[in-house]
Amino acid sequence: MADRVALAALNAMEKAPFVAAIGDVFEHADWVAEAAFRSRPFATVAALHAAMVEAVQAAPAETQLDFIRNHPELGGKLAKAGDLTEASKAEQGSLGLDRLSGEEYTHFEALNSAYKEKFGFPFVICVRRHTRDSVLAQFERRLANAADEERNTALNEIGFITSLRLVAQVEGPGAPKTDGRLSTHVLDNVTGKPARGVEIKLLEIGKSASGLLVETVTNSDGRTDSPLLSGAPLRIGTYELRFYVGGYFKAKAIAAADPPFLSEVPIKFSIAEPEGHYHVPLLITPWSYSTYRGS
Amino acid sequence: MADRVALAALNAMEKAPFVAAIGDVFEHADWVAEAAFRSRPFATVAALHAAMVEAVQAAPAETQLDFIRNHPELGGKLAKAGDLTEASKAEQGSLGLDRLSGEEYTHFEALNSAYKEKFGFPFVICVRRHTRDSVLAQFERRLANAADEERNTALNEIGFITSLRLVAQVEGPGAPKTDGRLSTHVLDNVTGKPARGVEIKLLEIGKSASGLLVETVTNSDGRTDSPLLSGAPLRIGTYELRFYVGGYFKAKAIAAADPPFLSEVPIKFSIAEPEGHYHVPLLITPWSYSTYRGS
Amino acid sequence: MADRVALAALNAMEKAPFVAAIGDVFEHADWVAEAAFRSRPFATVAALHAAMVEAVQAAPAETQLDFIRNHPELGGKLAKAGDLTEASKAEQGSLGLDRLSGEEYTHFEALNSAYKEKFGFPFVICVRRHTRDSVLAQFERRLANAADEERNTALNEIGFITSLRLVAQVEGPGAPKTDGRLSTHVLDNVTGKPARGVEIKLLEIGKSASGLLVETVTNSDGRTDSPLLSGAPLRIGTYELRFYVGGYFKAKAIAAADPPFLSEVPIKFSIAEPEGHYHVPLLITPWSYSTYRGS
Amino acid sequence: MADRVALAALNAMEKAPFVAAIGDVFEHADWVAEAAFRSRPFATVAALHAAMVEAVQAAPAETQLDFIRNHPELGGKLAKAGDLTEASKAEQGSLGLDRLSGEEYTHFEALNSAYKEKFGFPFVICVRRHTRDSVLAQFERRLANAADEERNTALNEIGFITSLRLVAQVEGPGAPKTDGRLSTHVLDNVTGKPARGVEIKLLEIGKSASGLLVETVTNSDGRTDSPLLSGAPLRIGTYELRFYVGGYFKAKAIAAADPPFLSEVPIKFSIAEPEGHYHVPLLITPWSYSTYRGS
Repeated sequence: MADRVALAALNAMEKAPFVAAIGDVFEHADWVAEAAFRSRPFATVAALHAAMVEAVQAAPAETQLDFIRNHPELGGKLAKAGDLTEASKAEQGSLGLDRLSGEEYTHFEALNSAYKEKFGFPFVICVRRHTRDSVLAQFERRLANAADEERNTALNEIGFITSLRLVAQVEGPGAPKTDGRLSTHVLDNVTGKPARGVEIKLLEIGKSASGLLVETVTNSDGRTDSPLLSGAPLRIGTYELRFYVGGYFKAKAIAAADPPFLSEVPIKFSIAEPEGHYHVPLLITPWSYSTYRGS
Repeated sequence: MADRVALAALNAMEKAPFVAAIGDVFEHADWVAEAAFRSRPFATVAALHAAMVEAVQAAPAETQLDFIRNHPELGGKLAKAGDLTEASKAEQGSLGLDRLSGEEYTHFEALNSAYKEKFGFPFVICVRRHTRDSVLAQFERRLANAADEERNTALNEIGFITSLRLVAQVEGPGAPKTDGRLSTHVLDNVTGKPARGVEIKLLEIGKSASGLLVETVTNSDGRTDSPLLSGAPLRIGTYELRFYVGGYFKAKAIAAADPPFLSEVPIKFSIAEPEGHYHVPLLITPWSYSTYRGS
Repeated sequence: MADRVALAALNAMEKAPFVAAIGDVFEHADWVAEAAFRSRPFATVAALHAAMVEAVQAAPAETQLDFIRNHPELGGKLAKAGDLTEASKAEQGSLGLDRLSGEEYTHFEALNSAYKEKFGFPFVICVRRHTRDSVLAQFERRLANAADEERNTALNEIGFITSLRLVAQVEGPGAPKTDGRLSTHVLDNVTGKPARGVEIKLLEIGKSASGLLVETVTNSDGRTDSPLLSGAPLRIGTYELRFYVGGYFKAKAIAAADPPFLSEVPIKFSIAEPEGHYHVPLLITPWSYSTYRGS
Repeated sequence: MADRVALAALNAMEKAPFVAAIGDVFEHADWVAEAAFRSRPFATVAALHAAMVEAVQAAPAETQLDFIRNHPELGGKLAKAGDLTEASKAEQGSLGLDRLSGEEYTHFEALNSAYKEKFGFPFVICVRRHTRDSVLAQFERRLANAADEERNTALNEIGFITSLRLVAQVEGPGAPKTDGRLSTHVLDNVTGKPARGVEIKLLEIGKSASGLLVETVTNSDGRTDSPLLSGAPLRIGTYELRFYVGGYFKAKAIAAADPPFLSEVPIKFSIAEPEGHYHVPLLITPWSYSTYRGS
């Protein structure tokens, strides 16, 4: 993000460079930046984003629909290199929608067709806030919406998408909150001390497949040196933390059975707030444990 | 077990029918029953078993070795119908050693050969107290034993095997403890009441495969109508309990996130005491849980 | 309770002995037993009680009020030996209302006067279901009731009082549930076993004073040989369980700090359901514990 | 501490002003500062303290004994204004040893006499690291020591005392760790969020009396705005945290019984490490809670 433009610089720009600088934040819709230009100067990046969102909200329904229609289809036929803005490509790629199996591809296509048939615009979702399963769940849920409701839902998703893009392009105070955090902490209740040296894996658990996201080990404070996930929205979906406590207790020579009652402790949980902080600690003995969503 | 012989009847028998009745408890070794016959009458089934075990312990080492050698190999070439006593067949079958994959079969054969080469007798283990993974772990561990140590280990296993057989064949007071129990209990800490209607699965978790053992649901006391496992030794090995609390909280309209933080709670644990009672409860809210080995 | 009358015997009685046998269950109101007599025979003691309650419910309001007026005042001037039935004396005595301090006596008298002034009948409450603090709380709360509401509340209390009396006087199947139970269980999460030998105290915690109710020690199952409270209604009120775990861990040589982080664990809780089962376990290590209302 | 001398300034001083500046850190023993002077310059305040301690360690036993003898008696007859250095007065006063009851005073005097009789020097302890009960416990325990062992114990205590004094008098990098911290955190496991607005009291629990140390309330993060204790050594002794969760759940309209099962949650614990961090959180629902020593 070395070439982010400063908010102060944006505030000082003429209209044309202003639109050139941030027009592509709202896909194929320079008019959004043009409208926001009138509200200069912006005290915060969030205020700039709010002004752009307001420009969309203030537009006639038909303009909003045209705007939505200009977004690429998700994982569908239009998802070919030339048809996606660079930003859209990166977002869809991170989810793995470009690596759908044949069956999944067919299912997404069917949803795409049904959706477009019903609403007349492509399904828009901020994919960086969702796992593949969550995209699918949203797709099926939103198909049941009424037309007006769904137009608002699509604009709301565009709000999330453009927040992320604006934060990536503009440097300045008061950026909208777009990142979440997942952290953990292991406490050994036999010794009353943080558990050091516990191996941990974090997996994304999908319906058809699971993937290893992080592999790490606790430090002397019973935490990981960096959060398990951070610096981006958390993806709505299901995860599993695995704590390999068998090796820990063996190394500490803390008495356990043979084989030990607890060796690998799995904690399966779902994330619903991409911008939230999920602290998922483990309080452990060789014979018991507890966990909770902390803060 | 309709045709179990009564301990009182055994106590009243002449030698020949006594040996005919329980001689096959110790594989191909009527001399064990013959020796035990001298200690009649037996106040308890356990005392009868102890007398038979003592007869083996009192025998010369060479006799003990012959006795051990008369046991069938585990999952090896000799495990063909004709070579196994009926009891041995049932015990090995329950473990799935008759359904080894090609690779597993080869591995077991290699262990069998190495073991027999080193000790001069087949690997004897009370398979009803072990999962397949545990048999394998014991096999590898025992290969490292010294000869005398391993002879005692084999006799000890025969003690477990014959306890089970004797209990199956003789009815009477003071049977040796041969069965274990696994139970659970789900408490809803939001309402302070037992959680009714929580679906539960119990799986055996093997290195190469897992298998569903039980599928049930909690009753109004938060327990299952019958123990998850009982009436037989628990098999040493790894298990997973899965509690489907998402559906429970939804049905009770207890507020949770979307998707809920906790939906399926897996508890992975190992059993080390086949004759023990493992109570593995779950204390739950939509945002936290704890478990422990209870009693 | 050696001289309880059998329900079968009651069912076979003529009216006069029937009324003589259980007439005093409803204070100074033989007409209740007389009315219930018509519904003979009773399959259960609960059915007999229900019939008597129904007789009261079916009576005109003025009769009900007269009936309530015939109950003694609580802890007031009328609570002298001659004015109380033997049963009333025992019930009030168990609460310690006969040992009120001067200040408390004055407060009760003031409440008594205000109550009688407002409702025209004495304050009736099933004192065996309440601690002294709870009686006081009920007194203050019920003073705010409307007249009809309060007449029903009084009759409801008489239902509790008479249940207890009937169960004490009549033997037979289907007795109404009048007793509660308080139990505990201590699990040592360091060893995964029940904690044996933990000293426990149970106290009633009153606003002006506290009293030791039970002093006991856990057995090899981590439980107490008999429930902490049972065989009678639990009194609505506040309690404290004290677990002396410092001595337990010291005796087991389980490492702790000096002085130990946890030595005496107090658990303070209130009972709201006199006929309920309160299981209040303790899961403990030298550095952590948890408790919950179990079942 | 506005007039603390900078370590850099000390490092640049001639001997006389150096000794004048910090000579009184070691009671009536300028020779300690004089000896340490030779090791200038000091990179850290801890290094300066270590040099002073080393000077004492290197002294002949008789010099050490003289040095110890120059310390005031604890709460005894000598504890009159003129006999205490200003620092000693402040330290003893904070414990309340100047407010001993008659009985306690007599007990301390007896211990003082016995101690002085046995060891020939007054009982020295870093009172700022102890509650009154802990001072008494140490007194009784140390009376059983052998003479050499006790001389070392006394010097070790003087190490603690002088660390505190030096940190109070000298400003600079690398100060020895002399302060501890007690903190808490309340998590509401019904909502999965920090519990805001829970009233908390912290008490010191003494054998003969208890005292309220802190009264506070949790903020929106479920923590207290500042640590419960910090900025000084924690005093070895017993404490009780009281969490008034009844009011919290009532305010949040989270269903509970009447009276609520949990209203005031007491957590009683002891502190053994004055320079440690004790985090004592509460995980709570209306029907359950858990606590542990966290970090």
